[in-house]
Amino acid sequence: MNDLPPRQRRREPTTVRRLPEKQVRDRTTLDAVLDAALAAHVAVVDARVPHVVPFGCARDGDELLVHGSTASRAMRLLATGLPTCATVTLLDGVVVARSQFESSMRYRSAMVFGSFQVLHGREKARGLQVLSRRLLPGVEGQRPPSDRELAATAVLALPLETWSLKVSDGFGEDTAEDLDRPVWAGVVPLHHVWGEPVPAPDLDPSRVAPAAVHAWPRGRS
Amino acid sequence: MNDLPPRQRRREPTTVRRLPEKQVRDRTTLDAVLDAALAAHVAVVDARVPHVVPFGCARDGDELLVHGSTASRAMRLLATGLPTCATVTLLDGVVVARSQFESSMRYRSAMVFGSFQVLHGREKARGLQVLSRRLLPGVEGQRPPSDRELAATAVLALPLETWSLKVSDGFGEDTAEDLDRPVWAGVVPLHHVWGEPVPAPDLDPSRVAPAAVHAWPRGRS
Repeated sequence: MNDLPPRQRRREPTTVRRLPEKQVRDRTTLDAVLDAALAAHVAVVDARVPHVVPFGCARDGDELLVHGSTASRAMRLLATGLPTCATVTLLDGVVVARSQFESSMRYRSAMVFGSFQVLHGREKARGLQVLSRRLLPGVEGQRPPSDRELAATAVLALPLETWSLKVSDGFGEDTAEDLDRPVWAGVVPLHHVWGEPVPAPDLDPSRVAPAAVHAWPRGRS
Repeated sequence: MNDLPPRQRRREPTTVRRLPEKQVRDRTTLDAVLDAALAAHVAVVDARVPHVVPFGCARDGDELLVHGSTASRAMRLLATGLPTCATVTLLDGVVVARSQFESSMRYRSAMVFGSFQVLHGREKARGLQVLSRRLLPGVEGQRPPSDRELAATAVLALPLETWSLKVSDGFGEDTAEDLDRPVWAGVVPLHHVWGEPVPAPDLDPSRVAPAAVHAWPRGRS
């Protein structure tokens, strides 16, 4: 965060006030969280009721990319540059403490604040490639978008300038008097694993899924 | 949605306009999505920049419950009843089409609109029980919250009155001219599975994790 212009070095919104010990300030960890996520939840707030909209996402260097239909109201509103927050949350497990109060979750959650910018031309085509490679890694040979399809797709980029990141990766912090309670305490990890590829009903049965797809994480880490 | 008061029978925000064929209107499916989720992403919008904040959540009948520290700015703001949206998204897989344009995700995503209400007294204690049973199903014997801990915890309820739900559970809809493209097409399912429980470092080694924890979904469905 040290290379931010002065106006962004204010306390809000990038300083975590609740459980500040969980705040992580290094950009490497932010990148790892964004790179592990498939979706971001994005605030779309106009004069009416706020919406929180999920989008497939991908990090491209210093930007978080999302894409969607130009016919989508959320995309059209975000494209106007309204102030937003894109939150990426990875749930890593549940923390079982001796007390209900100390029980919680393990998670990594990044909030990126700012305004999306609309990508055009070569930047837009590149953005779509980045999204495709992130969301379908190793999938090759798909037909690239036609001009009509490109025109129907919006690609938006949110700069990774103002952000906060919280990581909860510990155990419950039971007080001394709870330690002897005759119950189990620990963490139950949550894993996100890919299953067996399911061919489309209209697929020529001689076609097999790309080896890359079979290499997506399938076991428990 | 038929039992809503007339003021909520307007078109917005509960009618999905983009990909309306993915809209699901039955309450049973909404309940199933909320009951399968561990977290909701909630809009916290005051006069400043919007925030999207993840909360552990649980459905209690006709309400979605979240809880958190009374010291949390997000909780304090939500407790004032400001208009919000709580979105629950389950990512079920990726759709690999013959074209990049038709590739997408399988998901179930629910948006609940309205204002949270603060629970007090017996309702609050009951809400905490519902959250605990949902987030740590079958975990017994934990010390219940003390008066001090209860006072430090806020439990908020969002009525399931105004909501929308989108379910994407199909395959890519490639056009006829793409069908012969020599690539694989189908769906790669994404599963969320529990791993082996990890005991807390300060746990008496004779204590074993509850059988219920071992019964949480671990295989691929």
